[in-house]
Amino acid sequence: MSSSKTIGETTSAKAPDSVQWVGDSRGHLRLIDQTALPTELKFIDCHDVEAVWEAIKMLRVRGAPAIGIAAAYGVCVAASIAPDDDVPRVAEAAAQYLATSRPTAVNLFWALDRMQKIIEGSTDSWSAEMAPALRNDLHREAGAIHDEDRTMCHAIGRFGSTLIPDGAGVLTHCNAGGLATAEYGTALSVFFTAQDEGKSLHVFVDETRPLLQGARLTAWELMQRNIPATLICDSMAAQVMREGRIQAVVTGADRIAANGDAANKIGTYSVAVLAKAHGIPFYVAAPSSTFDLSIATGNDIPIEERSADEITNGFGRQTAPNGVEVYNPAFDVTPADLIAAIITEKGLIEPVTANRVSQVLNQAQQ
Amino acid sequence: MSSSKTIGETTSAKAPDSVQWVGDSRGHLRLIDQTALPTELKFIDCHDVEAVWEAIKMLRVRGAPAIGIAAAYGVCVAASIAPDDDVPRVAEAAAQYLATSRPTAVNLFWALDRMQKIIEGSTDSWSAEMAPALRNDLHREAGAIHDEDRTMCHAIGRFGSTLIPDGAGVLTHCNAGGLATAEYGTALSVFFTAQDEGKSLHVFVDETRPLLQGARLTAWELMQRNIPATLICDSMAAQVMREGRIQAVVTGADRIAANGDAANKIGTYSVAVLAKAHGIPFYVAAPSSTFDLSIATGNDIPIEERSADEITNGFGRQTAPNGVEVYNPAFDVTPADLIAAIITEKGLIEPVTANRVSQVLNQAQQ
Repeated sequence: MSSSKTIGETTSAKAPDSVQWVGDSRGHLRLIDQTALPTELKFIDCHDVEAVWEAIKMLRVRGAPAIGIAAAYGVCVAASIAPDDDVPRVAEAAAQYLATSRPTAVNLFWALDRMQKIIEGSTDSWSAEMAPALRNDLHREAGAIHDEDRTMCHAIGRFGSTLIPDGAGVLTHCNAGGLATAEYGTALSVFFTAQDEGKSLHVFVDETRPLLQGARLTAWELMQRNIPATLICDSMAAQVMREGRIQAVVTGADRIAANGDAANKIGTYSVAVLAKAHGIPFYVAAPSSTFDLSIATGNDIPIEERSADEITNGFGRQTAPNGVEVYNPAFDVTPADLIAAIITEKGLIEPVTANRVSQVLNQAQQ
Repeated sequence: MSSSKTIGETTSAKAPDSVQWVGDSRGHLRLIDQTALPTELKFIDCHDVEAVWEAIKMLRVRGAPAIGIAAAYGVCVAASIAPDDDVPRVAEAAAQYLATSRPTAVNLFWALDRMQKIIEGSTDSWSAEMAPALRNDLHREAGAIHDEDRTMCHAIGRFGSTLIPDGAGVLTHCNAGGLATAEYGTALSVFFTAQDEGKSLHVFVDETRPLLQGARLTAWELMQRNIPATLICDSMAAQVMREGRIQAVVTGADRIAANGDAANKIGTYSVAVLAKAHGIPFYVAAPSSTFDLSIATGNDIPIEERSADEITNGFGRQTAPNGVEVYNPAFDVTPADLIAAIITEKGLIEPVTANRVSQVLNQAQQ
């Protein structure tokens, strides 16, 4: 089942959640179909686990945290419609099935593990009258996963907002927003929080070739929240900086080394170099879970190369000669010395050095 | 009339000319239909002036020098089929008609003026037996316009090639190639000449959003000449530089101020900043006619803004939300201090200073 409406009808500054649970423990899961954005805001109501599996598989829900949350709720959907005398078996089967939807998604397994621990605790001497309690426990655990991510995003937003002056022009690359997480995202959480705190800001959005996550998702999220936003091609960022319209750059990160070198969507390094040349601070916003302290520096982060088609046949039309050689690195690494601060839910890492990374990450764990 | 063949059939390292005259003074004009590139190499045979007008109007022939050459030959086409007793009147009418095809193209008027001077010299006491001589004079003048441009491009190539080490990786942005000119282009002439001189090189081609001239035209031209070329998104240039794969950047220019500040396709300034940050020399290749010495610095060059559609609906599909605000500057200005040398047909301007600009431009005029 799905419902849709034309973009632009939403006038509230509160954007719809990419993942939400509807009803009590017998309720269902509602997702934004991110593949229909930016031209259509389409919701998918998942009343069985197959619908959740399909949504994850087909990237209707994307972003590591959002996938984990959706999968956790997927187990709840299965429990919701399971016969009372069979809830643990059905829920466990659902968890195993959902794990096959995106086999490389770490957050997916982590979230399903937490759900499976709840199921395991209830399998001994099962009786049908235990069904409501297990459904409640599963609902509560999925909600906790959801809430923890929301809380983390808000913490990143609060720390990050201190770096954004009132009236600032800011620039971001790719999409590190609410669609990928519980609510506020990481880089975009900084902007959303600054707005919540009454600051005015204007966000310049790199369209982010080749897959245009900036044009398709980030611009959409900012418009949903009535934050003034201007879409540009990636090659225009330098010009906008030169015109004096950018006071800070904030991006997300996919993986951060122990010394603070940060891998993120291709083009992030370019923006960081340009920011430095224009005397503009460049910030990375990411949860502490993004750090891989087993990696000393960014030199040890492998760069995935993706298909040439993304560049030569990106959006329904061939735009390059047959047989042209293409280089399509999916990520690049921004060295720590170009990053003014890394914004985590545990605080600001500033300056970005191995010592300060270790200090901030450990300090808050005490 | 048009003929076409599939790209890739051409194996010669000599690329087809974008503008060529077929036959003697009673011949016709053959153009590459640049709107069919890069997926199809389609030739248009123009046997009347209306076909030439349509080709210029519809951007089938593009690039200031190529438009001028095509228009000059357009007058020859009219003269070719005119009755002997009416050649001057028909040719003059053709020149006036062709001037309406692209009302802002300076080279168009300049070329048509030269053709009109030939016609004017023949109108007194016209008789039909003068027809062959006038057709020959017009054919010779159009050929001269063509040859002068070819010679200029080759001179730029020879001066520029001295800056390219054997085995170099080079990067270019947009299309400053043969399609836009008589044969070799400006920036691409540097690469073509380096190849002619036996140097090996590998060209990285920015796709050049929003209109993708790099992907559509530059990659195609390099493949036609069997020069190893790799297409990248504009946001990947920094990464390729960081990997040590670029030893020089060469771009064209649309307008250059007296101090050497150079306006060119949006994204050129970005590439220049990135080159500087990576210690890579950035060169501009352009004929001396590109200089506007009445403009002191790049600050006085107005930046044209183009339609939002080029960014939001660029690939045959809408890729951004309805109503999103867009900034789409068509050009940017690279300040002289980021340019290691300007390569002109009169020599290298190096270092790029107002004095040296004046010296090189005047010296060769003596």
